[in-house]
Amino acid sequence: MTDRALGPSILDRWSTVRGPLFTDMYELAMAQVYVEQGLSERRAQFDYFFRSTPDYGTHQAGFCVSAGLDPFLAWFEGLRIDAEHVEALAAMTSTTGERVFSAAFLGWLSAPDRFAGVEIRAIGEGRVVHPHVPVISVTGPLAVSQLLETSLLNHLNYPTLIATKAARVVRSARGGRVLEFGMRRGPATGVNEGIRAALIGGCATTSDVEAAIALGRRPVGTHAHSLVQAYLAVGDGELGAFRAMAASAPDDCVLLVDTVDTLASGVPHAITVFDELRAEGHEPVGIRLDSGDLAYLAVQSATLLDEAGYPDASIVLSSDLDELNIWQILTQIGDDAERLGIDPAPIRSRLVYGVGTRLITSHGSSALNGVYKLVGIEDDDGGWVPAIKISEDPGKVPLPGRKTVWRLYDRRESAIVDLVGTADEDPFPTDAIVVHHPTRNGVSQTIRRDSVSHVEVLHEVVFDDGRRPDPVSIDELAQRCATDIDRLDVGVRRLVNPHRYHVSITERLDRLRRELVADAER
Amino acid sequence: MTDRALGPSILDRWSTVRGPLFTDMYELAMAQVYVEQGLSERRAQFDYFFRSTPDYGTHQAGFCVSAGLDPFLAWFEGLRIDAEHVEALAAMTSTTGERVFSAAFLGWLSAPDRFAGVEIRAIGEGRVVHPHVPVISVTGPLAVSQLLETSLLNHLNYPTLIATKAARVVRSARGGRVLEFGMRRGPATGVNEGIRAALIGGCATTSDVEAAIALGRRPVGTHAHSLVQAYLAVGDGELGAFRAMAASAPDDCVLLVDTVDTLASGVPHAITVFDELRAEGHEPVGIRLDSGDLAYLAVQSATLLDEAGYPDASIVLSSDLDELNIWQILTQIGDDAERLGIDPAPIRSRLVYGVGTRLITSHGSSALNGVYKLVGIEDDDGGWVPAIKISEDPGKVPLPGRKTVWRLYDRRESAIVDLVGTADEDPFPTDAIVVHHPTRNGVSQTIRRDSVSHVEVLHEVVFDDGRRPDPVSIDELAQRCATDIDRLDVGVRRLVNPHRYHVSITERLDRLRRELVADAER
Repeated sequence: MTDRALGPSILDRWSTVRGPLFTDMYELAMAQVYVEQGLSERRAQFDYFFRSTPDYGTHQAGFCVSAGLDPFLAWFEGLRIDAEHVEALAAMTSTTGERVFSAAFLGWLSAPDRFAGVEIRAIGEGRVVHPHVPVISVTGPLAVSQLLETSLLNHLNYPTLIATKAARVVRSARGGRVLEFGMRRGPATGVNEGIRAALIGGCATTSDVEAAIALGRRPVGTHAHSLVQAYLAVGDGELGAFRAMAASAPDDCVLLVDTVDTLASGVPHAITVFDELRAEGHEPVGIRLDSGDLAYLAVQSATLLDEAGYPDASIVLSSDLDELNIWQILTQIGDDAERLGIDPAPIRSRLVYGVGTRLITSHGSSALNGVYKLVGIEDDDGGWVPAIKISEDPGKVPLPGRKTVWRLYDRRESAIVDLVGTADEDPFPTDAIVVHHPTRNGVSQTIRRDSVSHVEVLHEVVFDDGRRPDPVSIDELAQRCATDIDRLDVGVRRLVNPHRYHVSITERLDRLRRELVADAER
Repeated sequence: MTDRALGPSILDRWSTVRGPLFTDMYELAMAQVYVEQGLSERRAQFDYFFRSTPDYGTHQAGFCVSAGLDPFLAWFEGLRIDAEHVEALAAMTSTTGERVFSAAFLGWLSAPDRFAGVEIRAIGEGRVVHPHVPVISVTGPLAVSQLLETSLLNHLNYPTLIATKAARVVRSARGGRVLEFGMRRGPATGVNEGIRAALIGGCATTSDVEAAIALGRRPVGTHAHSLVQAYLAVGDGELGAFRAMAASAPDDCVLLVDTVDTLASGVPHAITVFDELRAEGHEPVGIRLDSGDLAYLAVQSATLLDEAGYPDASIVLSSDLDELNIWQILTQIGDDAERLGIDPAPIRSRLVYGVGTRLITSHGSSALNGVYKLVGIEDDDGGWVPAIKISEDPGKVPLPGRKTVWRLYDRRESAIVDLVGTADEDPFPTDAIVVHHPTRNGVSQTIRRDSVSHVEVLHEVVFDDGRRPDPVSIDELAQRCATDIDRLDVGVRRLVNPHRYHVSITERLDRLRRELVADAER
């Protein structure tokens, strides 16, 4: 039996698309239980949050950048169970040959408007987000809200991880343009969403032609070593390759100079071609370095370009870059410039960074630990019962019930705390409030109202009545991200060993959780 | 401007599908150069290979498992540049407002049969593969063969990484079933191809309903903590949740026992429900442990299940498992059993492993360093000129020209060396051959013909005349993988600090490369 013989219609798409059955089996199993037990339409709330920022091994991020929400909402908006899906589910049998899904459940699942009645509140894409704070709250019928779990986690976890890494890389480049170059090593079709997240995190554009077109950016790219190799093999050499490249793209000419010998061959040949371009009225863009000691070669190349009359030519760096490597390169250039008695500023300011593998795979921390937890359910009388999970690890007990999230800013417009409270609570019932650590019992601090310039409610309704709002442009999301990072304390922003940003819960939420844990343990 | 306003037709698909413009910008830039310079139709060969096995930080893999080839060939088979793609490319302008792509190039690109004339030879999916050995060789017109680079790398690198990780995890489970559970933390739509690779590497099935259907497997899954939480919240408790689950799936009943207290509540409640199931003529399947000290809890739970008359009930383990954690669990169970004076074998043999995040993201090594390098090009007279790239790192100089790859087996049917030679070479022109290290000059060994039981040619033609062969079933690919791993020396197979498998090049290929490097450096 070949793969082609299996469910051809689903098979055509499954490998690259998330369809309506893009979910874990246990979501369907639970939904069936809820339908059978008459609990399916009871309203429930699930929260999506993560427990810690990415830990890259030698260092941990001080914050995350939310991404993936709009693609998730687009998936949900288009969610429809067709006959082929019902047939596929109906064909599944247990180990004893019984049908796994009953006709009643499949009828329920494929009913028109099955996915109606779900309201989603969330912190928007591009916003800085922190551990334990609900990034998304889903309120709706229990069975349907449960069914969304896996797809929501899949849509959010990876993009948030990549937007976070991108924001770190972009910050480390200190104003230098960062280009996303990761599709060749990235996770299959997942790179598409990784690229979108990288742009939200601040990358200027991408090498991926299709993604760039879809996201309204100009794709970037020059040539590979193979172009020079081909010209070497057919006898025209590196200079021939550079001339051909320049003839094809006279106004976008960036030459890769490290195929033969960067300083002895590549840069001099590039300068020859730049002179020829200029003689024809075109201004060359720059060179690219893809191997060797990038900092050393950047300084040396900059000197050669300066001497030849190209002080504005860019130097694009690539080769396993990430936030620490870029930081190291900028530092080494400073040290090298000091040794040579030259000014490092003009060298640094001409650098552009092509960042591939380590961005698109979030090198060092390849998964975000985001979870989707039931936090409340309607009781028999239509009231809300908070739901918790008791765990051996108190940090794993989710914040129960319906909640509000506020971000408090100090008088310098720095965000100082994300505060999570119960629904409809006033964050400042008194002039000074005691707030609690989200996971460690008994740890609290006092916040005075007069130290706070303003309070922002972070959640907005992003899905209601089966519809999502019009998507926000990538430019606007990237701007949101940059603004939010600017409003973090510099200590929280730093790459290595950052200050821990304060996430707190209100007195009322803390009391509620303690009571529920005590009840459950009784 | 919202995203929706941008190239709507491409936008509808870009985020989840690899279309015809799923390529790096520089591939198109180079193709245009080749078209302009009259080099586009010259035949060339590119090799896909990787330089080292995944390094997980504390340990490195001893081999890789190839995956992703058939999805790549399917993409290539369907590759067609439509009017919308031409329009999108035609609209791209340089920094000075000139068109990036000429009408002549776009005419060339969109010609019918543009992608004809490409032959692809490869080592099939599921085969064990090693560093420096060409896994894929593409021979075809220079421009078109160059254009394939990014998509080929994207299709192969991630799946090969995941098939490799899966094979390691499956080996560490020593016969226990391994279930793929990673979609919630995996890389967006990339998980679909990761799951396919995980099955090739030996996972029994997946929790992803859609992927399982497409790949002909039965999806697995029971219930989440949220089911128990919901029943706790509405007053029916853990036992109520378990009863509802058992009623819905009486023949597939696996109960998650760690929501409240594994040994004090979960397992006893599960046994109560198992007794009820058995009274109604159903045999329960088992329990799942998702937190805490899994080895300890497995031993304790096994004892409780044994005492209650369920010695065959499975114990499914999940929670950040990988090959080392599974090894540790099996080791600890042995230590614990010795301490308790019981036999560990029946405990180990009832274990099933749900492996999620760390498999689908290849924890510790999140990218394979596979590359696609020009290795040969037709000269003006129709002969072949090998192409090389000189690098500061001799290990980065690709193996030049057209090649053959042989796998040599010893008399115990163990693979002892992958040997790469020039095309049409006889691997054993004499009774003893001297073979060379693929990257370190001057390192050689002698292989006697009488120590070799047989020689296997690893490459087969997998794409010719615009068509791929019928896909091989996942079962068969998984079988290939298991067979190949069985034929590795146990030292190469081991998880930590494996023996380095020998990859060698023939005397002729070594001489060719040395001559070319010397020529290029002159």
